[in-house]
Amino acid sequence: MEKFEINIFGCGAALPTPRRLSSAQIVNIREKLFMLDCAEGTQMALRRSHLSFSHLQAIFLTHLHGDHTFGLLGMLSTFGLLGRIQDLHIYGPKDLQRIFQPQIDYFCADSPYKIFLHEIDTRTPQTIYEDRSVCISTLPLAHRVPCCGYLFSEKPTPRHIRRDMIDFYHIPISQINNIKAGMDWIDEDGTLIPNNRLTTPPDPVRSYAYCTDTTYRPQLAELLQGVTCLYHEATFTQEHALLAKKTYHSTAAQAAQIALDAHARQLVIGHFSSRYKSEDLLLQEAQQIFPQTLLAEDGMRITL
Amino acid sequence: MEKFEINIFGCGAALPTPRRLSSAQIVNIREKLFMLDCAEGTQMALRRSHLSFSHLQAIFLTHLHGDHTFGLLGMLSTFGLLGRIQDLHIYGPKDLQRIFQPQIDYFCADSPYKIFLHEIDTRTPQTIYEDRSVCISTLPLAHRVPCCGYLFSEKPTPRHIRRDMIDFYHIPISQINNIKAGMDWIDEDGTLIPNNRLTTPPDPVRSYAYCTDTTYRPQLAELLQGVTCLYHEATFTQEHALLAKKTYHSTAAQAAQIALDAHARQLVIGHFSSRYKSEDLLLQEAQQIFPQTLLAEDGMRITL
Repeated sequence: MEKFEINIFGCGAALPTPRRLSSAQIVNIREKLFMLDCAEGTQMALRRSHLSFSHLQAIFLTHLHGDHTFGLLGMLSTFGLLGRIQDLHIYGPKDLQRIFQPQIDYFCADSPYKIFLHEIDTRTPQTIYEDRSVCISTLPLAHRVPCCGYLFSEKPTPRHIRRDMIDFYHIPISQINNIKAGMDWIDEDGTLIPNNRLTTPPDPVRSYAYCTDTTYRPQLAELLQGVTCLYHEATFTQEHALLAKKTYHSTAAQAAQIALDAHARQLVIGHFSSRYKSEDLLLQEAQQIFPQTLLAEDGMRITL
Repeated sequence: MEKFEINIFGCGAALPTPRRLSSAQIVNIREKLFMLDCAEGTQMALRRSHLSFSHLQAIFLTHLHGDHTFGLLGMLSTFGLLGRIQDLHIYGPKDLQRIFQPQIDYFCADSPYKIFLHEIDTRTPQTIYEDRSVCISTLPLAHRVPCCGYLFSEKPTPRHIRRDMIDFYHIPISQINNIKAGMDWIDEDGTLIPNNRLTTPPDPVRSYAYCTDTTYRPQLAELLQGVTCLYHEATFTQEHALLAKKTYHSTAAQAAQIALDAHARQLVIGHFSSRYKSEDLLLQEAQQIFPQTLLAEDGMRITL
């Protein structure tokens, strides 16, 4: 299967520590890299990951709180110093340009590449990026400031050719793409060879959803039906459900409920409040509702 | 002796790595903390150092390049989240307000403490901070943008009382401060007891100079005469002297020459270009001119 990997650089809440950065991830789809949020220290984590800086296509910011954006300027500046020349596109809510354009103009004035800031309306789901292999769309979230999650949906891949059958029926190379696309074959005797004799099914289509920061939003599950992997914030335990509501965050149980309702394959919880000495409480709370739950960790790599 | 310590958080040049941050230090004078520059990752290094966030009095920025300032916003924001209430004063060159005030207004809007930005004229040496124990003044440097170093000069401390002599001559407590200040004593018989019989000399006055980023400026040595410890940038070796000049940086040999001409007690070199696999070349080059040279290291603590 083609590569579809999530690299978690940081999964802490507002206060970064030497042990845990705030929010930042890289989604690696066939060596194209997409960044989700960019907390302070992201450029160092990116270096540590040995992912190629130059393969970064775009950056998607969920919202403009510092624990999701304070690493942006330093990283953009470093890209310039390292001689990046490809354009870089940054997506984020309202105010993205007002807040970051003056900083970019000041600190990246000599950078040899162009940075494009795209403000998105976080209130309705929309497709904001598309290429041959992936479609990226927004997921409305409810936080104290405009905020959205992002859904990465792999595009269907062609069926796999059975080399032995192609040889057996002497099918010319010119027809291979049609066969991959599902076409049957009629041989010299006029016999129809059904496609499923010539091919095996395509790889299953995978998807990844990144949902942070948000209060519990039951309707989010509708947009996530069948998602392969869901990253959902779980800042608090149910004990602090009122605080979660007040600060527009979620509890581990609420994250699990979303995963359950969305029929997700896997849930990864993150954005842990630093009040918890161990996150095991959060994990147990989520697993009681949705057993296929993992705790995010800085440096974790998840292969879909 | 009272505490006078330098904590080096970062001593790399423009490109931070997992091993080495860009510029940031804390000067700890009798548990009052003063920060010098604030590269990305400084707040994590501060946490790692176990120095008390709340003891930070002021921040001094040499210049407004990202590798000296990208950690500022994150740290200021964290101070707010941790409930700091004391005012914080930040000093830096022209543009400090234009560049950072909008960021502070946006990202630290809810912070429970006040931040004051003070723009300084970097072209002439001036005293910008003074309290009972230390005087901090600026050192004009020559970089691509307005830039200054900072000189921390301890104020003279009183002489040390010899408890045995005070008892022997029955000197009343009311007179102790006068004796510490150098006054002689006349006993009941009218005999003059010279002060040096009643006291021992005060601790020597110590000073620390932080000079980065700058091209070689021979006249800097005049302002540093007798400095206890000089931190001077040494971005390059003499092999790259032309590049140093062009980019307004110094070589290790030039840093050592400043230390020699200033009759410094000790030189610490830093701001190493990431082009050097090992900094030993830089150290050797400096030590040939000024043997009392140390290489800065992230996490290093120097006691004066």
